[in-house]
Amino acid sequence: MNRRLFLFASGSLSLSPFVPQNSVAETDAGKDVTRTLARHIVSAKPSDLPAPVRKEAARTLLNWVGCSVGGSRHQTVGIAISALAPFSGPAQASILGRKERLDILHAALINGISSHVLDFDDTHSHNIIHPAGPVISAILALSEHRPVSGNDFVNALVLGVDVECRIGNSVYPKHYDAGWHITGTAGVFGAAAACGKLLALSELQMLWALGLAATQPVGLQEMFGSMTKSFHPGRAAQNGLTAALLASKNFTSSEQSLEAKYGWTNVVSTAHNYDDITKNLGESFEISKNTYKPFACGVVMHPTIDGCIQLRTENKLTADEIDHVELRVHPLVIQLTSKKSPQTGLEGKFSIYHAASVALVEGGGGIDQFSDRAVRDRTIAALRDRVSTVVDSSLHEDQVRITLTTKTGRRLEKFVEHAVGSLDHPMSDKDLEAKFTGLTTGILSTDRQRKLMDLCWTVDRLPESSAIAKAASL
Amino acid sequence: MNRRLFLFASGSLSLSPFVPQNSVAETDAGKDVTRTLARHIVSAKPSDLPAPVRKEAARTLLNWVGCSVGGSRHQTVGIAISALAPFSGPAQASILGRKERLDILHAALINGISSHVLDFDDTHSHNIIHPAGPVISAILALSEHRPVSGNDFVNALVLGVDVECRIGNSVYPKHYDAGWHITGTAGVFGAAAACGKLLALSELQMLWALGLAATQPVGLQEMFGSMTKSFHPGRAAQNGLTAALLASKNFTSSEQSLEAKYGWTNVVSTAHNYDDITKNLGESFEISKNTYKPFACGVVMHPTIDGCIQLRTENKLTADEIDHVELRVHPLVIQLTSKKSPQTGLEGKFSIYHAASVALVEGGGGIDQFSDRAVRDRTIAALRDRVSTVVDSSLHEDQVRITLTTKTGRRLEKFVEHAVGSLDHPMSDKDLEAKFTGLTTGILSTDRQRKLMDLCWTVDRLPESSAIAKAASL
Repeated sequence: MNRRLFLFASGSLSLSPFVPQNSVAETDAGKDVTRTLARHIVSAKPSDLPAPVRKEAARTLLNWVGCSVGGSRHQTVGIAISALAPFSGPAQASILGRKERLDILHAALINGISSHVLDFDDTHSHNIIHPAGPVISAILALSEHRPVSGNDFVNALVLGVDVECRIGNSVYPKHYDAGWHITGTAGVFGAAAACGKLLALSELQMLWALGLAATQPVGLQEMFGSMTKSFHPGRAAQNGLTAALLASKNFTSSEQSLEAKYGWTNVVSTAHNYDDITKNLGESFEISKNTYKPFACGVVMHPTIDGCIQLRTENKLTADEIDHVELRVHPLVIQLTSKKSPQTGLEGKFSIYHAASVALVEGGGGIDQFSDRAVRDRTIAALRDRVSTVVDSSLHEDQVRITLTTKTGRRLEKFVEHAVGSLDHPMSDKDLEAKFTGLTTGILSTDRQRKLMDLCWTVDRLPESSAIAKAASL
Repeated sequence: MNRRLFLFASGSLSLSPFVPQNSVAETDAGKDVTRTLARHIVSAKPSDLPAPVRKEAARTLLNWVGCSVGGSRHQTVGIAISALAPFSGPAQASILGRKERLDILHAALINGISSHVLDFDDTHSHNIIHPAGPVISAILALSEHRPVSGNDFVNALVLGVDVECRIGNSVYPKHYDAGWHITGTAGVFGAAAACGKLLALSELQMLWALGLAATQPVGLQEMFGSMTKSFHPGRAAQNGLTAALLASKNFTSSEQSLEAKYGWTNVVSTAHNYDDITKNLGESFEISKNTYKPFACGVVMHPTIDGCIQLRTENKLTADEIDHVELRVHPLVIQLTSKKSPQTGLEGKFSIYHAASVALVEGGGGIDQFSDRAVRDRTIAALRDRVSTVVDSSLHEDQVRITLTTKTGRRLEKFVEHAVGSLDHPMSDKDLEAKFTGLTTGILSTDRQRKLMDLCWTVDRLPESSAIAKAASL
């Protein structure tokens, strides 16, 4: 506590050359939100990180690297590179899973797309942000251009996740319910903060970096099911890195970008809670609430996949035997994943009907179950049409109640209390390694896979974090 | 009318490989808004442009070039280049008024910053978008990489302005009043449309370009008074160009990005009118409502500057003789320009108090009146403190009622019905040339100034529009 009191006390001494006078904080509670946050980012030290937080950072990193390498062969990534590489700067940074090297701004974008395109990455258990994409895509690229120790890298990673998730928490769920893709809109702050930390910005420069981030939110939910969804974390990474680079040269911006009358929280949300941003800074860490997906789609479909796989295994069911499946689900499932007849793998990731069907038919929810092949499979498509949904607000997001009726009239029920991969039923380190191996097989050799996982587990002891980018590219 | 009927009829034949099923148009009125717009952009021909529209395009271009060259020496531009040039790609495009050449994406950003940093550019008379910045910054850079005729360039320019202003109109004023900087948030569509036109996108690709634009709105009003304000049109240009480049390689996105439930209009505004977007496409042109600033600040301060200059001239006033000045103004003046004690030139552009004072003391409202020097001048600062404002909703945005009281008790009044530079009192071609000359003197030789103005006036007859970029850079 002493440290925090000191931080507040020293604040009154700082001089401010730019005070926008139309920037009225709405309430006293909003006073100095951005400054408090910036001050924390600038002062936070690697030695302040508890061991479990370091461990979770390594898990987040390992999962992100696996997803990025695994996603790097998706046509979305190839198209983005072919469209933008002619405008890239020097070969400063690696594209994971590939041979190309681009400037750090483009590398941040492309690696961010790769990490999210399979919808297999991480998810914060409260605000459903995918925390790693915007932050790690940016700092890994930056660290190839400006070398940093693994210890500093982990500190920036934890800070970036903390900043984006705290800001996300402050406007969740109103901001999300309005149609914003919170991973892009809040993620840009995480990228700016983490890159700003690695660039050793002053407090004033960090305020400007946050201002430049605030003015560049990325992502509408309407894009879900198209390639543009994965563009969001990539662009958030690139925008946050741009913000930090500009601020490092004293490109000025607002100093109250979060709480000002026409600042971020008031413009992009109808409600906010500033305590979520400033409470217990440096004492509680949002990365502790990160979760890792066992299935290659949004977490709201995970309970259904989990339950359908269990029903299939326990009852040795085939698709032919199933007459009808009813899913009682959280309202968000319908808001996000109600595509009835997906035509592409990317669209399948937004169809709860496909998710239930493919899990029952194939007993899985991996990349192959959300491919163009799977959504076009006749058996899966036919069963999909026999799946119905009922919204049940009494259920939590990681729950589902499945009622399956067989053609012989048998009625099978399955209640999933906490889906596999959720905070209450987390992926073990071994699970994460198995997922990593599955994602990277065919791209990296077995030796390389092992070496890369070990680099991730020991990231905070590496002399240079860029070793990870080098080991993950071809 | 026949042409439009034909366009609608042919629409039912087009095939759509990606139809997001959570994209429900809110009302029938919203049905196919994005598609109607995309179809128009793809089919619009240079030969459809009436002569007065071509003329206004040349005026818009000449004004933008002057502002970009004039703004190119501002420290904001130098900082942005120093921060980002290390990551630039090949030297593909000119930076106006300077020697550097950057890749087209960075050139679009930097020229967009230059064009707006003096707040001396153009303003649409209805929605206060600065139309040229996002559009011309993008297409001029692109046309240096992919040569196009002046005729096609003008067509893209007119289309880009039409698209951004129609979309802006559809959500104005609710969207603006919420705190968005509409030049960046709507401007990105104009840049995407204009670049997409030059890249000869198909209808489906144009839909994707608009989707990629929709998901990247730039700009919060909180940034006004800092360098980040001019970042907005630059980034909108860069984002729109990026959107078109990605779409040209078949990077998929939504096909209903404007009207979908979680699409742009519903997410960024509490009200919208889709007729503003689709009515009389190809028959009425938003560029016809463009205006050009005689003073180097936002248009809401122009009536005050105009009136104060008139009062000074008519009464041969000095600052010492003035006791007090009262301004009755439109509400937007207070929303946007209520900085009481600006400390920098950029902040001075958001102080109606400074504007009145400097116009009375120096008889002008040019670049020099909105410099760091002017806001720190003791006489101007002292008079600034004797200026007060009263909101009067009965006034239009281009009006002001000034009451000036002298120390001897004289009471002088001035009502400005239409400020100089407004649509009802427009800058003549000669005024625009004088402004251009003032902005570019000291950067371009007299010969070069004349040559560049002639290139702008005759742009639609140039074999290659890139001649303008070459003549405007060093």
